[in-house]
Amino acid sequence: MVQLDDLDRAILRILKEDARLTISEIADRLNRPESTIHFRIKKLQERNIIDKYTIVLGENLQPKSLAIVYIQAETPIIEDFLERYIRHIMKTLSLLPNVLAVARSGKDGVVALIGEDTPEKLNRFVDETIRVLPTLKRVEVFTLDEFSKGDGLVGFLVGV
Amino acid sequence: MVQLDDLDRAILRILKEDARLTISEIADRLNRPESTIHFRIKKLQERNIIDKYTIVLGENLQPKSLAIVYIQAETPIIEDFLERYIRHIMKTLSLLPNVLAVARSGKDGVVALIGEDTPEKLNRFVDETIRVLPTLKRVEVFTLDEFSKGDGLVGFLVGV
Repeated sequence: MVQLDDLDRAILRILKEDARLTISEIADRLNRPESTIHFRIKKLQERNIIDKYTIVLGENLQPKSLAIVYIQAETPIIEDFLERYIRHIMKTLSLLPNVLAVARSGKDGVVALIGEDTPEKLNRFVDETIRVLPTLKRVEVFTLDEFSKGDGLVGFLVGV
Repeated sequence: MVQLDDLDRAILRILKEDARLTISEIADRLNRPESTIHFRIKKLQERNIIDKYTIVLGENLQPKSLAIVYIQAETPIIEDFLERYIRHIMKTLSLLPNVLAVARSGKDGVVALIGEDTPEKLNRFVDETIRVLPTLKRVEVFTLDEFSKGDGLVGFLVGV
């Protein structure tokens, strides 16, 4: 398990909110010497506790209609075919800009997060790109209408 | 619609990969004057195209077992009750540290992203915290076993 003390956690929380703050600003907020903050951040990076510094894109670049789609393939007689077919679906979806995230779900399933400008475009995408895939057993669509936690994830995932 | 030219997009892509790069480093990579890069980033921030600078936490802080859970409430006779009940579920789940994201799904549903250390803990959480909620019509659990796109989202969402 990772060992983090209160100061490490405080630094990480501050950087999550605004990763542009300088060492000096963070030191001021936490009432600690700059050298301490500098050392801690260096260690957090070296230990890969901080994996990456990135940006979240604003609402005007975010798709407005979101849905989680679960796709389950028919289990075929030959297991090797199923494996290759699931990989194929994952790869195909991953290449599409309106597919924000793709994960495998069990042996025969794929979960994707889809983002489109309008509910109509979203439905069309599901109908024309997903439901037409051959040998599917089940397709479930769950719209994401309003976040109460984690709403930054769309601006984090969306590409330009 | 948002107007972005090739240079804006190039800057955004670079900052997505590493938001710590200096103006001078970005200018070098794109073979443009620093003043141009400085001006563009300023504009991207002012227009809220860049919403936030943040960090992604590394694997050692990320939960290993993930699942999307869809919860659908029984539709009651009184619509006002359904509305308040869905809000209550969303709020309750949002407060839990192992619930990484929560969104409303339609009038009677909630989608949550759950993260736990092991599949056993994940199952226990679903059984003991979600399935016990009163008047549910349906609970669906889709494990996320391996990402082919968007895998950074866990390190982005996880708290400390």
